Amino acid sequence: MRPNASVSAQTPALIPALIPACVLAAAFALPGAASADPLPSWRDDGAQARIEAFVEAVTDPASEDYVTPARRIAVFDNDGTLWSEQPAYFQLLFALDVLKTKAEADPSILTSDVLKAAAAGDMEGMMAGGVKGLLEVVDVSHAGMSVEAFQADAAAWLAETAHPTSDLPYAAMTYQPMIELLSYLRDEGFSTWIVSGGGVHFIRAVAQDAYGIPPWQVIGSRGNLSYDAEGKALMKDGGVSLVDDKEGKPVGIDQQIGVRPILAAGNSDGDFAMLDYVTAGDGPSLGLLVHHTDGAREFAYDREGHIGVLNQGLDEAEGRGWLLVDMKADWTRIWTGGE
Amino acid sequence: MRPNASVSAQTPALIPALIPACVLAAAFALPGAASADPLPSWRDDGAQARIEAFVEAVTDPASEDYVTPARRIAVFDNDGTLWSEQPAYFQLLFALDVLKTKAEADPSILTSDVLKAAAAGDMEGMMAGGVKGLLEVVDVSHAGMSVEAFQADAAAWLAETAHPTSDLPYAAMTYQPMIELLSYLRDEGFSTWIVSGGGVHFIRAVAQDAYGIPPWQVIGSRGNLSYDAEGKALMKDGGVSLVDDKEGKPVGIDQQIGVRPILAAGNSDGDFAMLDYVTAGDGPSLGLLVHHTDGAREFAYDREGHIGVLNQGLDEAEGRGWLLVDMKADWTRIWTGGE
Repeated sequence: MRPNASVSAQTPALIPALIPACVLAAAFALPGAASADPLPSWRDDGAQARIEAFVEAVTDPASEDYVTPARRIAVFDNDGTLWSEQPAYFQLLFALDVLKTKAEADPSILTSDVLKAAAAGDMEGMMAGGVKGLLEVVDVSHAGMSVEAFQADAAAWLAETAHPTSDLPYAAMTYQPMIELLSYLRDEGFSTWIVSGGGVHFIRAVAQDAYGIPPWQVIGSRGNLSYDAEGKALMKDGGVSLVDDKEGKPVGIDQQIGVRPILAAGNSDGDFAMLDYVTAGDGPSLGLLVHHTDGAREFAYDREGHIGVLNQGLDEAEGRGWLLVDMKADWTRIWTGGE
Repeated sequence: MRPNASVSAQTPALIPALIPACVLAAAFALPGAASADPLPSWRDDGAQARIEAFVEAVTDPASEDYVTPARRIAVFDNDGTLWSEQPAYFQLLFALDVLKTKAEADPSILTSDVLKAAAAGDMEGMMAGGVKGLLEVVDVSHAGMSVEAFQADAAAWLAETAHPTSDLPYAAMTYQPMIELLSYLRDEGFSTWIVSGGGVHFIRAVAQDAYGIPPWQVIGSRGNLSYDAEGKALMKDGGVSLVDDKEGKPVGIDQQIGVRPILAAGNSDGDFAMLDYVTAGDGPSLGLLVHHTDGAREFAYDREGHIGVLNQGLDEAEGRGWLLVDMKADWTRIWTGGE
């Protein structure tokens, strides 16, 4: 996942131990990192040039836009920005699988029409309940277990279950160009964070392996938690204590980061408030929207549908100076697990 | 605040630039750091020895208790653990000052007996409302302003207002031995976090300067927030969305860190659940309770009173293997701003 880092990470073992590792690292890194393309899955113009110009401006101590490493904070939406979100949010598909299994053992948990539709695989009937209905499905399937057990289940499901159209494991449907962008930013002294409308524990289950992002840099929607003093564990009680979407994203950022980031990436109007907040700071900033234009290699959608709707962002990106990334034109490769 | 770090941080500038900085750092650090006392305000036995033995065990790659740097997470209560909390929590004293000023401009905000007592300086009348009453005082004084404006006010008040008995500015009443412990842990690859029942924005106002802890490593009680799209700012709406105390501390840790820490420090039964959670992990861990035994230099209190009550912790510390730090016996100095 980090093509540039792999060479210098593996090389020192081959060299006599007398030479300090830091000197070796410098010797290998200087010519290598400066000449190699840090974003090999991006076409060499347009979006890539804009991103690199921004990063160079904020990392060059001689630049008037210089930002200290501690303030180089970059926030990323997850669904549709770092991995795919069609035909439905992966977390919802996971929740449906869990709900079906639970309902087979105990049908009495299906206490509403939405839950009954979901367990029967009737997607339209389930969608009829709107966001509230979807939250109910997630709630019933995720609650009543420890955080640790839930994360183990989610990680296993993401690694082992095949997506209905790509046939890849869900965990392999991360966007390779965005993985490279995360690595590039970290190599340039940024901290990289996820700010997702999805559930925080679901994303943490894979964030370190998939994105190199540790649990404490994942912000997401939250259910209620309680401490079980007998089991010495955190328990998922259901309900919702933070909806980390739309205006909830700046709220989640303040709760968990506490300072305004300088780079925000999203793909839908659920990310609009986050980009609005991040690009309103006093210093330099970059707002980025991934536009799903590639129906052949991924999915093409924007202004219509139930998921990842992008209207205000498309209308205002140019006027606000936000970078619109055209997946079809700007990316030479889509999925990390694909070709 | 970081006596050991200052020498090596300043030295390289005096040396010809031809020698790689990393080699110089190693040359200066090896003899210096190994022989210097990382905890100069701790007496050289008892608590200090126990802390150093734990840190050496988890940082030595040859030790069976070795822990990778990413998992060296240390959590600290704030009031009574990192700074003083008598005669009342500093945040409450700040809230009272703000409430008085607000009520002079608009007496109609005093909508309850607790608020009237607080604005009149009647501490007993205010305390009669219990925790709910205190939250009401904090709520009315802190709500209706931006996070940024609130933090600027809090930082100024802490720097400029004198404590009623010590006559030091509140911000100078951090515990020097704990500041040294935080620095020592960071030098040994730990990340250091605050997990406080106090308000997260109040602590963030000074955490970087006072403790070297950035905003994103402060966890505290939270009010409701909203995003103001006109002002591009986060607004404090009042109310409470997380009480980060007692069983709420493990909840706050999971929400913001997402993994179990290996070191927890507190001073009251409000920290009991946090120490219980942290010391229940599979690997090595250290639970530490600061015991307020020094009535001459600070304040002596434990089993009785309204603030910092320590009963269960005193009863169970020995049986659980938790380190009880005796402020009078173990610390040669108390406040960072004192002698």
